[in-house]
Amino acid sequence: MRILLCNDDGIHAPGIAALYDAVRDMAEVHIVAPEAERSAVGHAITIYNPLKSKKIYKDGAFYGYAVDGTPADCVKLAVSALLPGPPDFIISGVNLGPNAGISVIYSGTVSAATEGIILGIPSMAVSMNTFKDPIWDTAKKVTREMLKRLTEDGLPQDTLLNVNVPNIPFEDLKGTRVTRMGKSRYIETFERRTDPRGNAYYWMDGELALLEDPADTDLKALEDGYVSLSPLGFDLTRHTALPHFEKWRDAVVGEPSQ
Amino acid sequence: MRILLCNDDGIHAPGIAALYDAVRDMAEVHIVAPEAERSAVGHAITIYNPLKSKKIYKDGAFYGYAVDGTPADCVKLAVSALLPGPPDFIISGVNLGPNAGISVIYSGTVSAATEGIILGIPSMAVSMNTFKDPIWDTAKKVTREMLKRLTEDGLPQDTLLNVNVPNIPFEDLKGTRVTRMGKSRYIETFERRTDPRGNAYYWMDGELALLEDPADTDLKALEDGYVSLSPLGFDLTRHTALPHFEKWRDAVVGEPSQ
Repeated sequence: MRILLCNDDGIHAPGIAALYDAVRDMAEVHIVAPEAERSAVGHAITIYNPLKSKKIYKDGAFYGYAVDGTPADCVKLAVSALLPGPPDFIISGVNLGPNAGISVIYSGTVSAATEGIILGIPSMAVSMNTFKDPIWDTAKKVTREMLKRLTEDGLPQDTLLNVNVPNIPFEDLKGTRVTRMGKSRYIETFERRTDPRGNAYYWMDGELALLEDPADTDLKALEDGYVSLSPLGFDLTRHTALPHFEKWRDAVVGEPSQ
Repeated sequence: MRILLCNDDGIHAPGIAALYDAVRDMAEVHIVAPEAERSAVGHAITIYNPLKSKKIYKDGAFYGYAVDGTPADCVKLAVSALLPGPPDFIISGVNLGPNAGISVIYSGTVSAATEGIILGIPSMAVSMNTFKDPIWDTAKKVTREMLKRLTEDGLPQDTLLNVNVPNIPFEDLKGTRVTRMGKSRYIETFERRTDPRGNAYYWMDGELALLEDPADTDLKALEDGYVSLSPLGFDLTRHTALPHFEKWRDAVVGEPSQ
């Protein structure tokens, strides 16, 4: 079994080292990750510049490839060029900070897993529900358990598994919930400042606001102390909205077109 | 009626000038766009640096704000800080190149409209199905028509309209189709080169491969000469995959959790 590890916090982040520790005895493990932090890059890719890769060593041994691109770039480059062959699984993370609710669409961690399923490779993103003092041991144990399930049950087509882990000792986890992306948004504020030359610049700050709170959402599972498992895809079509536009088919030519 | 225009090709791109021409007599129009091209940035946002904005003048008159950020940044900053009040509509584009099929998830043009609906503002993305010699007149006429429909019918909640326009004269358009994101992927190749110091770098190239070809997809509509209207959202949950994970609920604690 060959596994590719990626993240958006950069190859030197402790989260990807935690992943490596968690699965190194279960598979042939390869690390290809951004050379520096690339949080909130969404599903960005690099199309007008070449990608550079650099071998990274740790304690004198080869650790992985650092790439000067986005998480999605790393997955593409790893699968097409750097690995000896396509991986059986891709695991992205462990991210410092939850990727739940609306944060999912800004997430570089999730985008690496999304790129994986676009390439047809079963993929999982793992994030910790904290920005400080992460209990990596909990994330490691959850990752190992999820990888076992993945190898036994696989994933539905075009589906990645988005795992969010409460930042509490493993023994204190309440259990596991299968969830959907909770509806939420950031309430942004921009603080306007002026530089010494008189030009305006703005610091963005934001607070996540929950727009709903039912038990089947990722955000609520975390709040309640459960590991959250969300199946995610990449079809952005809003199928329920299709009928609304039916009568628009007479636009442009003046009569409904086939 | 107040309208915000944005794009990912940058404030100096001819596509946003085409938008401006198309709707300037229909509304109070504001332009806030990236200062330089930001294609394929996906739904990236800038969280660790401040955003700078600069007033841009054209023929001696104020034209709009250039922002050193992503399309999603531009929309956030415009709505929260730069405009005199929230816009009634956001239009992103006109993009040079289609945003159909899998390209949608990499698209900065679409991400500006996505940010719009996250903020609760009806939003539309417009793209031309060509990378050269665009017939802007066609895009302008289609945009005007779609804006009229938007003001009459509105949009379903949490839904943006992704418009793709064939690059043919307006009179030759076959009509309008209501479509979904066609299934497709890029088949990437990475050409490996070595810099003068011996370091490897890779140029990515890719070709879009259609994985299906039914008439109700955006890609097929364009191929057939129709304007493609796709309702898109931001809920990435793969609801059909939820049952697959039901039995995973006994993970972590060993017995199914509520």
